[in-house]
Formats: sequence, structure tokens, C-alpha cells
Amino acid sequence: MHVSEISRNQTLAEVGEFALIRAITADLPAHQAVHIGPGDDGAVLTIDGPVVTSVDVLVEGVHFRKDWSEPHDVGRKAVAVNVADIEAMGGRAVGILVGFSAPEQTPASWALEFAAGVRAECANAGVALLGGDVTRARDITISVTVLGTTDGLPTVRRDGARVGDVVAMAGRAGWAAAGLAVLGRGFRSPRLVVEAQRVPQVPYGAGAVAAAAGATSMIDISDGLLGDLTHVADASGVTIELSTSAFEVPEPLRAVAAATGSDPYSLILTGGEDHALVATFASADRMPAGWRLIGSVVERSPDRPPVLVDGSVWEAPAGFQHFGGGRR
Amino acid sequence: MHVSEISRNQTLAEVGEFALIRAITADLPAHQAVHIGPGDDGAVLTIDGPVVTSVDVLVEGVHFRKDWSEPHDVGRKAVAVNVADIEAMGGRAVGILVGFSAPEQTPASWALEFAAGVRAECANAGVALLGGDVTRARDITISVTVLGTTDGLPTVRRDGARVGDVVAMAGRAGWAAAGLAVLGRGFRSPRLVVEAQRVPQVPYGAGAVAAAAGATSMIDISDGLLGDLTHVADASGVTIELSTSAFEVPEPLRAVAAATGSDPYSLILTGGEDHALVATFASADRMPAGWRLIGSVVERSPDRPPVLVDGSVWEAPAGFQHFGGGRR
Repeated sequence: MHVSEISRNQTLAEVGEFALIRAITADLPAHQAVHIGPGDDGAVLTIDGPVVTSVDVLVEGVHFRKDWSEPHDVGRKAVAVNVADIEAMGGRAVGILVGFSAPEQTPASWALEFAAGVRAECANAGVALLGGDVTRARDITISVTVLGTTDGLPTVRRDGARVGDVVAMAGRAGWAAAGLAVLGRGFRSPRLVVEAQRVPQVPYGAGAVAAAAGATSMIDISDGLLGDLTHVADASGVTIELSTSAFEVPEPLRAVAAATGSDPYSLILTGGEDHALVATFASADRMPAGWRLIGSVVERSPDRPPVLVDGSVWEAPAGFQHFGGGRR
Repeated sequence: MHVSEISRNQTLAEVGEFALIRAITADLPAHQAVHIGPGDDGAVLTIDGPVVTSVDVLVEGVHFRKDWSEPHDVGRKAVAVNVADIEAMGGRAVGILVGFSAPEQTPASWALEFAAGVRAECANAGVALLGGDVTRARDITISVTVLGTTDGLPTVRRDGARVGDVVAMAGRAGWAAAGLAVLGRGFRSPRLVVEAQRVPQVPYGAGAVAAAAGATSMIDISDGLLGDLTHVADASGVTIELSTSAFEVPEPLRAVAAATGSDPYSLILTGGEDHALVATFASADRMPAGWRLIGSVVERSPDRPPVLVDGSVWEAPAGFQHFGGGRR
């Protein structure tokens, strides 16, 4: 990134909108789908077939804390959580747009390192930075919109799970929540869970693989496994049965659970922000490589809730909801 | 909009994220391009040919004031300013995504009326509401991403103005700035300029008409005519000459200028937020209906600035820049 015109000790007020944009968008790598990148009124790109699109907003103090995450991590996370939404439709992300709002007194270095993180994760995910908007605001607020393609495959929705399907997962669960638990207690280890909280490891490519294998439904786990699978179960009119025996408890999660006096399965089942993908398939042998079996789809009935764990209702808050309006 | 589950006296904290989303997205009108609308991880739509896309962020206290604009106006404005960016590329907007952040104590009625404004302006512009994200934040922050098509026409960029071209405008200039001037002095009239400040009258369709007529360059006027035409002139390596005699001074602007002791041409030349379109054409007879001549393109030289007004440099701040980093 060309930052020669900006001193890293300057504030955004001193740098100004246009110099900041020039620094962020200088020397962007070429991307075969992009005809016009940042710098005009709009970007222009080619997307093969239907366009899959989604937006996510990250707010300082709500989705990240400046004392817990480096700006580079926040940039990477902003891209990763959005690409996960396209993966969850069975698609492949092609490009993103970033809205960046920050106080005038924010160090320019924060914005530049955030932008470097955005570019790093775009490179990881094979995604082009198409454009954005920068403006001042009291809190740092980041909106990322992602555009993707299904490469001719059918999109995979939340409402297609059928009785008899198997439930499978790609990616991790409970890691980011474990990281949040230790950060909230003032610790910085285990390092792996703290890193997972800062930047989720989205299983890039697993969504398209699932779509090609005929996944009947799919979702990305942003609010927690039980909460998000409730959406799938309700939309599909089925009940999803999970088995705790299907989940290995990784050593760092065991350590955090022991240190905080909690149940590691609570982290796995209700922890958000790992952005694993969960999909249903007609049978276990349809399940592609990289996916592992975690449950099955059974009939819904008036006395059967949307999600069961080892045959019972899991007794704990099942997910996060903004504005605090009632736990599911 | 189905708002039956929400009492308008409730706060967003009392309503919760999911009920708010259900209320906002209930009974969305069908749109032929949209396969999957709000409610899944991503929306899916068909866009014919290359995708044109852009994002704009509106922040409370920066882009709008709750005491000056009704939430319905803010919703309409958020859509209009984004659609203008697609128009400025010669495109036609097809769908939008909205990121909405607000304090927990915001009345639900504010969010619902904002959403009604979004839907109303989407209907005006023929655009589908594809999806969004809602989250809490200290200030109301709105990001709108718009996706559009060029319907097979070439996109029109900022860098294509050529010496000998004519400069033409569709839409209005100075109206929103006049509205801002009177609102800033505590007045609510002239009503027409106050309304222009609240919701810009974007000349929907004029961008595609200009593209079809062979426009060589185009931009939407968000920061002010002189500031935005400086972008075109610099990108194209030319100088743009405007003539004040080409601008009729509308009666409300004359009234505001007289009342505030300012020059009405200052409002017209430097006022932002009207989102008129300005384009260049190879000759005056290429200029389509709905467009009017305001200037010409001449050679750039070391002693000639990017934009001249009646042969001279206009002596006034030429546009708005976020973070206050120097006026152009």
C-alpha cells in the first residue's frame, strides 16, 4: 500500500478523506472479474449467472474492541464474516465493498492497518476490493457488502432440510466464544482461541463443495450452532437432532471450560462468531470431504422443539440477538 | 408493512433484532430480477451483463439530523443517493442492501418509518430491497449498497471527457445547500429547498439515457458541481469551462441567497447533496432530452485549473470532504 503521503502519527482529520482513499486503494491487485475498481461512482464486474449478495455491519464496542483486536484483525474479520454468508448459499465470493466510518481523531495508522487486513483477507479468499465509502462517525463502524457467484450451481437455502437428511459441519465451533471468555477475564491465552475470536477461520470453498454435492440446506454459524440451526429447522419445518458425541472437544476449549468453570459443549453449541458452515445432505455418503457428521433431521411435531441435543432441549441461552430483544 | 407485533412506543431494545427484521421485510413486493430476497444468508438476483455496484454510508449528525429530517425522509435519501451512483455509471439500479445501526433506546417507530421510506424510494426507483443487517451502535448509521446493470450499454466513467465536448446536466444544483442554509438558521422555508435537503430529486433514468446517447464521461454531484467536476477534469486531463449564464436561478434559491446575503451562484456551483448528473457529449446535438448545456471541455494547461467559471477560478470552497482534511 502506498502510504507515502500519510504520516502514521496523523489523525484522519489531518489526512482527509481523499488522501485516505488514495492510500487504501493504491496498487490494488488485478482481479479477472473486475472491469472498474475503486475511484469512479461505481465499480463494474462480471459475475457469471445469478449474483449472490449479503451485507454485515461491525461496530466498535459491539463486534470488536480496539483493546482486544489489532486493526489488521478487524479488517480480516470484516471480510471473513461476509464471505461466509456467500459460502452458506453455496456460492463463491467475487468482490466486496467496504463502508468505513470513524472518529476524526482516529490515528491514520488504525485505518491503514485495518485496510491492510481487508486486503490480506481478500487475498486469502480470492476476493476483489471493489470500492467503498469513508465518513466520520463517533464509533468505528464497518459495513462490508459481498457479491458472489454460484458458478452455475443451484443456491442452497435454509428451508430445504428434509426428514432423513444428515447434518454436517465444516469449520469450527466454540473457539471464538472461548476466546471471548478469556479476553473478558483479562487473559490473552490460550492463544489459539484468542486468535479465533479476532479472526474466524472460515472454511473457504466448503460451501461450493457442499452445493456441488447436493446439500439440501446450509447456513453459516454466526450466532451459535443451536440458534442458527433453529433458523434452518423452523424454515424447513423439521427438527434437527445433534449428538454431543459427534463433537470432539479440542484441547484449548477444554482448558477454557475448566478455567472458567463452564461446560465445553456449551461453548461448542452456543458460541457464535466462528462462521462454520452447517449443511444437510440426503445421506452420509453424499457428504463431501472436509465435512463431518454432527446430527440428523427428524420429523417436527408440536411437542418437539426445533433443535434437540442428545434427545433433549439444551438448557442455556442459544444465541446472540442485537438490541437484546429476548433470547431464542 | 406488517408491524402488528410491534408497538410503536417500544424501543429497539424491547422489540429485538429478529422482530424488527420481520416487520421491515414483511410482504416485500416481488421484483422480477430477485430469486431470493431477505431472510437467508444472502440474496440472489439476476443481473444482465456486468454488475455495477456502489456503497454510501449516512451517519446521524453528519449526513442527516433527526431534528431536521423525518425518518421516512432519511430512508428515501439513503436509497436515492446510492441509486444516483449507478445512474452516474450509465446504469440502472436493480437492488439494494441496507446496513442499519442504531442505539438500543431508539423508538421502534423511527426504524419502521425509516424502513417505510427505504421501501417508498425503492418503489420510485424500481429497485428491490434485497436484504440487510441490523445492529446496535451509539449513532444511527446507515449503509446502502446498490447493485445495477448497464443493460448491455457501455459504462460511462469519469475519465472520458475530451476537448471539444459539451458539458450537460440533468437534475438540480444548489437546492439542498439552500435547504441546509435555512435549516441551519432555524427556518423551515422556503419549503421546496428544505424538502430538497431532506430528499434529493435524483433524475432517475437520465444516466442510462446519457449512456445510450454516447456520453463520454459522467458523474453524480454529491459534493458540489465544482468539486465533482474537478474529479472529471483531473481524471480526463482536461479543463471544464462553465458559464453562469447557463444556469437559471430558481426563485427559491434567489430568496435564500437574498435572505442569507449570499450569491445564488455559490449555492448552485458549490452546493452538494442534490445528486444531479453531469455528463460530457461529443457535441450539443448528441445531448438527449432532459439534459441541458452548462459548459464545454477545453484543453488543460499548466496555467489553467481543472474548472473555470466564466473564464475565472471560482473563489470559494469547492466541496465537502470528510474528516475536514483540506478543501479542494
